[in-house]
Amino acid sequence: MPAKNGKQFLDRINRAKPSVWFRGEQIDGRLSDHSAFRGLMSTQAELYDMQNHPDFQERMTYASPTTGDPVGLSFMQPKTREDLEKRRQMMMLWGEKHHGLLGRSPDYMNTGLMAFYTAAEILGEKEPKFAENMRRYYEFCRENDISLSHAFVQPHASRFDELLEDGSIETCAARVIEENEEGIIVEGAFLLATQGVTTDEILVYPPAYSYMPEEDSPRTFAFAVPNNLPGIRWICRESLVGGDSAFDYPLSSRFDEMDTLVLFDHVLVPWDRVFILGSDHLSMRLFAESGFHVHCGHQVLCRYIAKMEFTLGVILYMAETLDRATYPATIEKISEVIVHLETLKSLLIASEAGAVLDRFGSMLPDRRPLWTANVIFPKVYPRMMEIIQLLGGSGIIMLPSELDFSGDPKADLNKYLRGSDVDATQKTALFRLAWDLSTSGFGGRQTLYERFFFGDSSVVTNRLYQSYTDKKTYIGKVKTFLGQKDE
Amino acid sequence: MPAKNGKQFLDRINRAKPSVWFRGEQIDGRLSDHSAFRGLMSTQAELYDMQNHPDFQERMTYASPTTGDPVGLSFMQPKTREDLEKRRQMMMLWGEKHHGLLGRSPDYMNTGLMAFYTAAEILGEKEPKFAENMRRYYEFCRENDISLSHAFVQPHASRFDELLEDGSIETCAARVIEENEEGIIVEGAFLLATQGVTTDEILVYPPAYSYMPEEDSPRTFAFAVPNNLPGIRWICRESLVGGDSAFDYPLSSRFDEMDTLVLFDHVLVPWDRVFILGSDHLSMRLFAESGFHVHCGHQVLCRYIAKMEFTLGVILYMAETLDRATYPATIEKISEVIVHLETLKSLLIASEAGAVLDRFGSMLPDRRPLWTANVIFPKVYPRMMEIIQLLGGSGIIMLPSELDFSGDPKADLNKYLRGSDVDATQKTALFRLAWDLSTSGFGGRQTLYERFFFGDSSVVTNRLYQSYTDKKTYIGKVKTFLGQKDE
Amino acid sequence: MPAKNGKQFLDRINRAKPSVWFRGEQIDGRLSDHSAFRGLMSTQAELYDMQNHPDFQERMTYASPTTGDPVGLSFMQPKTREDLEKRRQMMMLWGEKHHGLLGRSPDYMNTGLMAFYTAAEILGEKEPKFAENMRRYYEFCRENDISLSHAFVQPHASRFDELLEDGSIETCAARVIEENEEGIIVEGAFLLATQGVTTDEILVYPPAYSYMPEEDSPRTFAFAVPNNLPGIRWICRESLVGGDSAFDYPLSSRFDEMDTLVLFDHVLVPWDRVFILGSDHLSMRLFAESGFHVHCGHQVLCRYIAKMEFTLGVILYMAETLDRATYPATIEKISEVIVHLETLKSLLIASEAGAVLDRFGSMLPDRRPLWTANVIFPKVYPRMMEIIQLLGGSGIIMLPSELDFSGDPKADLNKYLRGSDVDATQKTALFRLAWDLSTSGFGGRQTLYERFFFGDSSVVTNRLYQSYTDKKTYIGKVKTFLGQKDE
Amino acid sequence: MPAKNGKQFLDRINRAKPSVWFRGEQIDGRLSDHSAFRGLMSTQAELYDMQNHPDFQERMTYASPTTGDPVGLSFMQPKTREDLEKRRQMMMLWGEKHHGLLGRSPDYMNTGLMAFYTAAEILGEKEPKFAENMRRYYEFCRENDISLSHAFVQPHASRFDELLEDGSIETCAARVIEENEEGIIVEGAFLLATQGVTTDEILVYPPAYSYMPEEDSPRTFAFAVPNNLPGIRWICRESLVGGDSAFDYPLSSRFDEMDTLVLFDHVLVPWDRVFILGSDHLSMRLFAESGFHVHCGHQVLCRYIAKMEFTLGVILYMAETLDRATYPATIEKISEVIVHLETLKSLLIASEAGAVLDRFGSMLPDRRPLWTANVIFPKVYPRMMEIIQLLGGSGIIMLPSELDFSGDPKADLNKYLRGSDVDATQKTALFRLAWDLSTSGFGGRQTLYERFFFGDSSVVTNRLYQSYTDKKTYIGKVKTFLGQKDE
Repeated sequence: MPAKNGKQFLDRINRAKPSVWFRGEQIDGRLSDHSAFRGLMSTQAELYDMQNHPDFQERMTYASPTTGDPVGLSFMQPKTREDLEKRRQMMMLWGEKHHGLLGRSPDYMNTGLMAFYTAAEILGEKEPKFAENMRRYYEFCRENDISLSHAFVQPHASRFDELLEDGSIETCAARVIEENEEGIIVEGAFLLATQGVTTDEILVYPPAYSYMPEEDSPRTFAFAVPNNLPGIRWICRESLVGGDSAFDYPLSSRFDEMDTLVLFDHVLVPWDRVFILGSDHLSMRLFAESGFHVHCGHQVLCRYIAKMEFTLGVILYMAETLDRATYPATIEKISEVIVHLETLKSLLIASEAGAVLDRFGSMLPDRRPLWTANVIFPKVYPRMMEIIQLLGGSGIIMLPSELDFSGDPKADLNKYLRGSDVDATQKTALFRLAWDLSTSGFGGRQTLYERFFFGDSSVVTNRLYQSYTDKKTYIGKVKTFLGQKDE
Repeated sequence: MPAKNGKQFLDRINRAKPSVWFRGEQIDGRLSDHSAFRGLMSTQAELYDMQNHPDFQERMTYASPTTGDPVGLSFMQPKTREDLEKRRQMMMLWGEKHHGLLGRSPDYMNTGLMAFYTAAEILGEKEPKFAENMRRYYEFCRENDISLSHAFVQPHASRFDELLEDGSIETCAARVIEENEEGIIVEGAFLLATQGVTTDEILVYPPAYSYMPEEDSPRTFAFAVPNNLPGIRWICRESLVGGDSAFDYPLSSRFDEMDTLVLFDHVLVPWDRVFILGSDHLSMRLFAESGFHVHCGHQVLCRYIAKMEFTLGVILYMAETLDRATYPATIEKISEVIVHLETLKSLLIASEAGAVLDRFGSMLPDRRPLWTANVIFPKVYPRMMEIIQLLGGSGIIMLPSELDFSGDPKADLNKYLRGSDVDATQKTALFRLAWDLSTSGFGGRQTLYERFFFGDSSVVTNRLYQSYTDKKTYIGKVKTFLGQKDE
Repeated sequence: MPAKNGKQFLDRINRAKPSVWFRGEQIDGRLSDHSAFRGLMSTQAELYDMQNHPDFQERMTYASPTTGDPVGLSFMQPKTREDLEKRRQMMMLWGEKHHGLLGRSPDYMNTGLMAFYTAAEILGEKEPKFAENMRRYYEFCRENDISLSHAFVQPHASRFDELLEDGSIETCAARVIEENEEGIIVEGAFLLATQGVTTDEILVYPPAYSYMPEEDSPRTFAFAVPNNLPGIRWICRESLVGGDSAFDYPLSSRFDEMDTLVLFDHVLVPWDRVFILGSDHLSMRLFAESGFHVHCGHQVLCRYIAKMEFTLGVILYMAETLDRATYPATIEKISEVIVHLETLKSLLIASEAGAVLDRFGSMLPDRRPLWTANVIFPKVYPRMMEIIQLLGGSGIIMLPSELDFSGDPKADLNKYLRGSDVDATQKTALFRLAWDLSTSGFGGRQTLYERFFFGDSSVVTNRLYQSYTDKKTYIGKVKTFLGQKDE
Repeated sequence: MPAKNGKQFLDRINRAKPSVWFRGEQIDGRLSDHSAFRGLMSTQAELYDMQNHPDFQERMTYASPTTGDPVGLSFMQPKTREDLEKRRQMMMLWGEKHHGLLGRSPDYMNTGLMAFYTAAEILGEKEPKFAENMRRYYEFCRENDISLSHAFVQPHASRFDELLEDGSIETCAARVIEENEEGIIVEGAFLLATQGVTTDEILVYPPAYSYMPEEDSPRTFAFAVPNNLPGIRWICRESLVGGDSAFDYPLSSRFDEMDTLVLFDHVLVPWDRVFILGSDHLSMRLFAESGFHVHCGHQVLCRYIAKMEFTLGVILYMAETLDRATYPATIEKISEVIVHLETLKSLLIASEAGAVLDRFGSMLPDRRPLWTANVIFPKVYPRMMEIIQLLGGSGIIMLPSELDFSGDPKADLNKYLRGSDVDATQKTALFRLAWDLSTSGFGGRQTLYERFFFGDSSVVTNRLYQSYTDKKTYIGKVKTFLGQKDE
């Protein structure tokens, strides 16, 4: 199946029937019928439909190197500046569809897998078949438009080792407990596989540090498996879907990406799905040399821009309906948003303007502007949500529902809740959107999620700092100014 | 009825049957059985029970000047420093019970009404019976332990006047449309009567500006009426109660103070319940001279402290379970909370240390530290919630529910989700609390609510600035230093 | 004289002998010998020398359209993208020479004059000769490499009108008090003509508002005159030059741009130097339509980048000598600087990438990224200085002088004041630089100056906000999302 | 000599003739005649004069326990709340005289010495005579009103150990190189003995950590010696005195506390002046148990308040002369200052309200509010300086001098530089003060100094955090709320 459409996406997920646990019970029926999933999956389906829609297909797909069929453009390795531009257009098209609210828009994981694929030869340095596995897996995903989630963060308890009475040590850390002819047996738990159950497969890999480890660890491994493999269980968090009404819950009814805790209990991962085994060093090199965080950073920045544009629109529209767009205090706040948006847009332009070919033939965007964006966005996004609250005030709380507008008090609501130039339902729809973005449980999770999206503050800062090769140049300028010799 | 207990509170509300609209339908049964209200009302009942509990009664009540029966201490006018201290102890007792999460703890409105009562003679300057009405109403509330809400903010649309085809002007502003022998007929809408329907009566008054208006407005009035008066309708917002489980929703299951839009449709307010009519000037003087914002500010600061202590406890406990209490980055964040808590506590001490008698015989706390607290808290509270998110990370999102711990995956959850020195259910309970405080829909509303609790940023700033009589003193110091004459 | 060299610059200034007052006395001798001016003028001379230096001439000049001789490239109207790039290279060359410390690097005013020139036809709408004056004046400056200062801010007192005893009104506002055959007679004072006396001529024009005035004001005028015209007096501020030692005062000994108060006492401005008279409307259109703030913004952003690079170098070098470059707290601070630098560089790239031709044939950079930079820089620059202080601590205060290193205690100083990998004089030179940048009187004035360089916070914010034509687009996205019609 | 007066202070310093090096040369004449010291020493003399002035003597001194003569109250151990109050009044009197601009107002070191004295018995645990030395030294200082400086920070290079060719190790760390019958021989250097040469003696002690070291270090010692002991040399930094004119340099002409690098070259410290030798553990206990940082923190907070009041006065006066006291943006900024001032004042009140007797008989203020102030002030003081700059704009730069007002252009200056309700010299005097506080070299050093006054950010934060014994209480509240057992 080349680039799939929405129906194909839904069917495959519904057929797979992984072991999903929600509020203490296993979900039995079709996932796409479940209240916690139907809105999200319908949105995902719309994204996939764009790949086959005449208006978009050309911009969303490219000819498969294998079959010539149209496959998802997010799988394409960029080899020229034009490729980068095509990728950006595709990512903006999807981003503008979900307004940046889906951290796991399909292009995210597809891009990450593409990055790994381009540098697969690194995996082969230890064991040739691991490189081959990666290349084959990438091609399998591209040609079948596999939806992926990923996992690498383990629960806090994974750091505890416990001495049992019989003298053995129990650990909570994920690890390979056995290797046999068929594959490796994995045991452990991973936090926060976002969209874990609304995708086809999960890619598990070690965390990416900004330093090179000195020694290899037997607990290091990377692999990919279908979600429904025996021994895998998915525990869902609270659903943050407020309800099905798009008027009342404009965002949570469509974009609540379920996060899951994924439990591996004696899971057999077949050898052809293993990419790394026991080699921290190769793992770190894979991240660093494949440009994983650069390629993905390009996608992430497109998503940031789509989200910031949407946020700016919400805020501008609010100011208009409240007749406050000319107040100095409002201008100051809105200008903050404009400043951040223009900054993000400029960082994107600069990253492409500074792209260079890497040794794997990828036209790699300039990492400096991209990783700068990863430091900026998690800090300014919560402030943008604060601006929504400061502008909207109690108008963001005291909101009637869709049903109220058809009930008995509707005449009064229509009278008292209208805004400047908009009627009461339009204004209420806008303010419910502002609420769902900034203040609802869905909004709260979005804010928290963005704080940590590409690593916590110290991770994204170190990624930028450690790789910043211009440091010597700038010190040199100062030494020259001071008349000191610069060795 | 002197100081009431919880059962009496519940019975009276359930009997009143005001016209409450929730999601387009009028609520029919007992309010205390309704999912959106039962948790809150049960909490309120617990507060009232303290008034009659042997451990607390002495600290929660005082002898009625009329009957000698114990009545609520929050109605007591403080005449000495000891009175202030008693009031503070009572407010801290209630505050520590609800951890500052109830903006409409009974002491808030009782204190405000007490302030108005002490300065009732101002109302009599225009019309003696208005002063008398206020005194009588205060006594009625005190002796019957009436629960009050209040309203003064009108919807944005109240600023629009519309010219109708017949040449008349339609306005949305609340106003008296008729005066007759029985009373005044009121029409209009008010935003955000928090706890409007879980109290007995509503007090309506004009907004308190920091300046004296030049002219009186015919649209100015103040009155109090029972919630179930004909013509009054209450429109509820979204319920933010996640469910009944105190494990899953430790805060929203107990503290979701419903906000309402209250509609007055041709409501007859009897003359003996009218306090102000048509006099902006008296209204402003009532606020300024009664020390309304000072007396209430004392209560608000106690609540702030209770909330900050609880927040600090949550954060400290999180750091402990994550084994991070010795990390510099954690110490820095926790110390921020400590700094704010110590600041608030010192402001409270200073406000009492600087109390002086006003002309109505009230021992009035020093307004400067109190109003300073009103500027500080709305800015630091959101940051405290941010600290919870930064500390907890995805652990605040990826949380199983109470049911999960009794379901099939419980063994794995118990293994993988335990923290340092706490088991998995304890840790999960704590992190669900952190989530409900900082990130859930309930938490989002709390954060927004605190931003605007005692007025928006410019209101609380102006209240402090305009009343700050030390300005000349400090300019004088500089003139003296410069050898300039200080006239 | 085509593009001049340093000697020519110095000679012309020294010959002109304007009326300059410093600490109550008129300066008599050569300005370039005066302790307050010699360092600065020597730096300016070095900049002009670059125009004739074989290494730079090609990049610093272009062929005069009139004579074919090499004239300063900063006078060149950019007509193509390549022109923009050439201009940027020239501005970066000068910027890297003075490390952004000269707000009045020659390219600043030359660029502004060029912008006015391109739109001179606007001036002709009222009076054809005004357009002609502007064109002729521009050509005169370009062909003679005239150094310019400018003035437009009047003292606070200019807002006071005083009623005199004889019934007349005395005003402090600058104004034309007479028009005669030769020209206009001007009276008034202007604040802060930076480098007023180390340039040849002064350009006086009205402030640029972000709104269109409704009426014309008789007090509006624009003109340019030589600094030594009779009736013009220049009052200098405090000199911030610490001394001549480049070791002790690495910045103030070279870059203290003297600010002056310029007094016009009955000054005759000849008609051919008048560009605007009595027309607020044309004045505002001149600013808006000539792209004055866009062209200048391009120069300013180059200067910002040079300054930020230098600042980053200082901070990195300090961290190195203190052996702290691997401390998390240091990495966090340095990364802040990197983030700002990468942001500024990206904004510059984006402004050029988005350039379009305007109706005067100028290739005009995208104003959005440029004006974004003008909002960002004044906020982050003071923070960068704060970072220098936080990193250097008391090491920025407790600094010996050059003389100490040759005096008796030099052995001890060499022993105790050395840093990691640098000797004591190198380290001291670096920390004296850090002090002069962040903490000395020179540094203090730089920080204050940057806060207001292109207008105060509300001016630069409004410039961005009011011109931001994308606002409707973003509101439209939200309306579409909500299913509302976008008119 | 009991509490000395100004003349006695000056005479003693002038007689001592320590080895002071300024710009490479040793100062020869009377220190109080030197341009870098005369203003400061005159200010110090004024402070000491207050001790003998009839208006102040009673509040500035107390009867010596030894002689009954009036001695400086800052030496008095507070044993009751009234003592604390007396000390506070004395500190505020001095603080209001120097407006908080002297970090080394005599009460600072006197208080620290008093703290050590009260806990002298700790020193005796190792060696009884060390306790006796401390008691005797304290009495000597009190009875002779000795002015003290102190030193404990060593240069960065003190961390380097170098291996010499002969196999020995050279270190830069300060250390005892010999003990003999007369005393100990000390070698090393200390940074930043503020007012080192305008005091009589120097107290040297080890840094105070917030943790208990595990082992003792041979490099640990504490002692006090006269400034003119052979082998001690003082290297001065840059003088920040702008000149003698109080109009032009209102602050630097009076308050520039010279900082010095003090070099110990084979200095013999007699045994009776040694307090600690080789015992880190006792050193840390001395700080912790004597309440050194609590007693001093009380003094520091008084100084903070005096400085904040002065700053508020400057800002209010500026707003008045600029006619901007009613602008919302100005109100917001001024209110920030008010908030900080009210906070500091409340922390002071709370610290005294919570005072308790310690085991040495000292009435010790509550450390929590005091140490909270030490975290707050260094962060808000730079912001206050920023507010001065934002309010004053270029008016803080473009300032004529006193001489200009008597020179030729004085008529124009008087006309153009007047403010609202003040004439031009008054306004200029105010703005020169604003400049000297916020922007001059003197101001820059003040800002930097305050950032680090009581330790850098992590030191003051840790001091508060580690000692905060309420942590368990607050965790307990949360456990109780969650129904968890609190062990």
